[in-house]
Amino acid sequence: MKAYLTERREAIARFLQAELGEVEAEFQRVSPWGRDVARRVLDFAIRGKMIRGGLVAMGAGLFGHEPDEDIVRAGAVAELIQSFLLIHDDIMDRDTARRGEDAVFYQYAGIARDEGIDDWYHLGEALGTCVGDVAMLYAFNMLEGLSCPNEVSGRVRSLFSREITWVGLAQMSDLYYGETTRQVTETEIIDLYRFKTGRYTFSLPLSVGAVLAGQGESAVKALGELGEKLGVIFQIKDDEMGLFGDEERIGKPLGSDIAENKKTLFRQYLFARANESERARLEEIFGSRAVKPETVETVRELIERHGVRREVETLVESRAEAARADIARIAADTGADVTMLGELLDYNLSRNV
Amino acid sequence: MKAYLTERREAIARFLQAELGEVEAEFQRVSPWGRDVARRVLDFAIRGKMIRGGLVAMGAGLFGHEPDEDIVRAGAVAELIQSFLLIHDDIMDRDTARRGEDAVFYQYAGIARDEGIDDWYHLGEALGTCVGDVAMLYAFNMLEGLSCPNEVSGRVRSLFSREITWVGLAQMSDLYYGETTRQVTETEIIDLYRFKTGRYTFSLPLSVGAVLAGQGESAVKALGELGEKLGVIFQIKDDEMGLFGDEERIGKPLGSDIAENKKTLFRQYLFARANESERARLEEIFGSRAVKPETVETVRELIERHGVRREVETLVESRAEAARADIARIAADTGADVTMLGELLDYNLSRNV
Repeated sequence: MKAYLTERREAIARFLQAELGEVEAEFQRVSPWGRDVARRVLDFAIRGKMIRGGLVAMGAGLFGHEPDEDIVRAGAVAELIQSFLLIHDDIMDRDTARRGEDAVFYQYAGIARDEGIDDWYHLGEALGTCVGDVAMLYAFNMLEGLSCPNEVSGRVRSLFSREITWVGLAQMSDLYYGETTRQVTETEIIDLYRFKTGRYTFSLPLSVGAVLAGQGESAVKALGELGEKLGVIFQIKDDEMGLFGDEERIGKPLGSDIAENKKTLFRQYLFARANESERARLEEIFGSRAVKPETVETVRELIERHGVRREVETLVESRAEAARADIARIAADTGADVTMLGELLDYNLSRNV
Repeated sequence: MKAYLTERREAIARFLQAELGEVEAEFQRVSPWGRDVARRVLDFAIRGKMIRGGLVAMGAGLFGHEPDEDIVRAGAVAELIQSFLLIHDDIMDRDTARRGEDAVFYQYAGIARDEGIDDWYHLGEALGTCVGDVAMLYAFNMLEGLSCPNEVSGRVRSLFSREITWVGLAQMSDLYYGETTRQVTETEIIDLYRFKTGRYTFSLPLSVGAVLAGQGESAVKALGELGEKLGVIFQIKDDEMGLFGDEERIGKPLGSDIAENKKTLFRQYLFARANESERARLEEIFGSRAVKPETVETVRELIERHGVRREVETLVESRAEAARADIARIAADTGADVTMLGELLDYNLSRNV
């Protein structure tokens, strides 16, 4: 399955190179930044792992549909939209690094700083916001090139515009939960995992692929539900690696979720199980920007002491079981070869610390 | 013509009320902010003058096409996109007021501040960015409801996605020109007027209307070119009112373009004509955040002394003449009743201090 996704990546990168290469001159006619934007967006987009673009192909492949040009185009759209989201996210989260280089907005901030502009950081944020908007708008423009029947392309466009609307709304929850002092509920956290991670990373691209393979709404619905479960598992594993993982392997400082007071399920269950004095201690730790290794260790110990890991694992197992049932149903209802869906689930389950 | 646009406004407002009212519950299922977002976007959108939405109807009306549901829907899309652009613009420009109320991002900042969140201003910016994204994505989703033939709706979608991509690029120029110390050329300024004001405010909505009325690419091209000229005139009149106008009527402090060092044509010609000592004085004045009435007076005097107003007026007249030729050609080529285009040009020309 990983090899399959890697193979898809090449075709999508080539497609984006051709598309954005072709539009460079037009962009430049509109603005002195035009060529620069086309190149920077391309450079950013093709440095990603392109999981979502690959999953479009997988969604079609389940139903025996080869990765034709429409599949590659829709995968490229998924990746440009991913670029848009990450470019905006980095501004919102003030993350100055991404994919091993400066975040896109921070690249522009650097240009402004080098030019001696006083308000360089803010100008970088503003230019970066525009670049994100351009990536997204151009992605929708690219969808007009689909060669499938209108009825099919209309459903593909609706999936993209509707589901990415939801990502925007879920991102608002995520931003807010990170800052608020009010109690966030378990349902709200799981909804965030469903909508920000699950539907966007799994449901949307798999569904787009299925629609391009000629499937009806029932397949879209089934893949949508499966995607939500995969997303919850994926996000929980991500959160777990952020607490118990290897700093070098996960590519960010251990305990950064603790520092940012991110409302993860681990945090949720831990606060619910902790006694009063432990909770007071945890309230000091979570959200205190500089988190030391000893502090992470304290949190880990409390997590183990209260059986939080086991509790989270139980939730993961129940979602995995439900996901298996979804997969079996998809096979039964559509005759799809669901081998890769099983592998996708197993991959999500096997990501560990 | 103004009465015509006002009439269209009602239908668009009703359409947006119905659409966003219907989607509220869905948004709320995705995020606890969902209902709030739908209502706030609606409230913001319908407080505008809805010129662009009205111009969609006018673009169709030229060709005898009545404002049917597709026209209203496309007009509503134009207004939602306008909301998206303004919501993002206010974050970029740090404008905390808009349409007589707090800017949308600043409304969210206020909520965050009232909740006692430390980083309230930044959270407001981040939530506002998401709301802008949601408005735009949902606008594209609404386009899927067009009932015209696929060939027509595809052209409408392409116009929106392509032209708004250009607005994003032009906005980058605008942001950059406001901050850079390098010389901005006259061509760059006029290109900005063409792409940020002209194509977006006039060319796009008129063209969308024409396409929905069944017109081909030659009408789109002609209206596109006309729109650029109208935009240049509109923007120059706007700049002029900002220098010589009535503070109460224009709704912003006189000389705010001077304070922001906005690269207008007036500034451009003034710097070109000024002698060395005047230029030194002007360089002190432009961009110094607090601009006093006496300073505005100094700039006005220099503008008059060097015949800058006349020079700008000459440019306006040449564009107006070219616009009249465009209008006559549209009438000759398509048989359109171009009365309202003439009125639109006259309206733009008659806006004055």
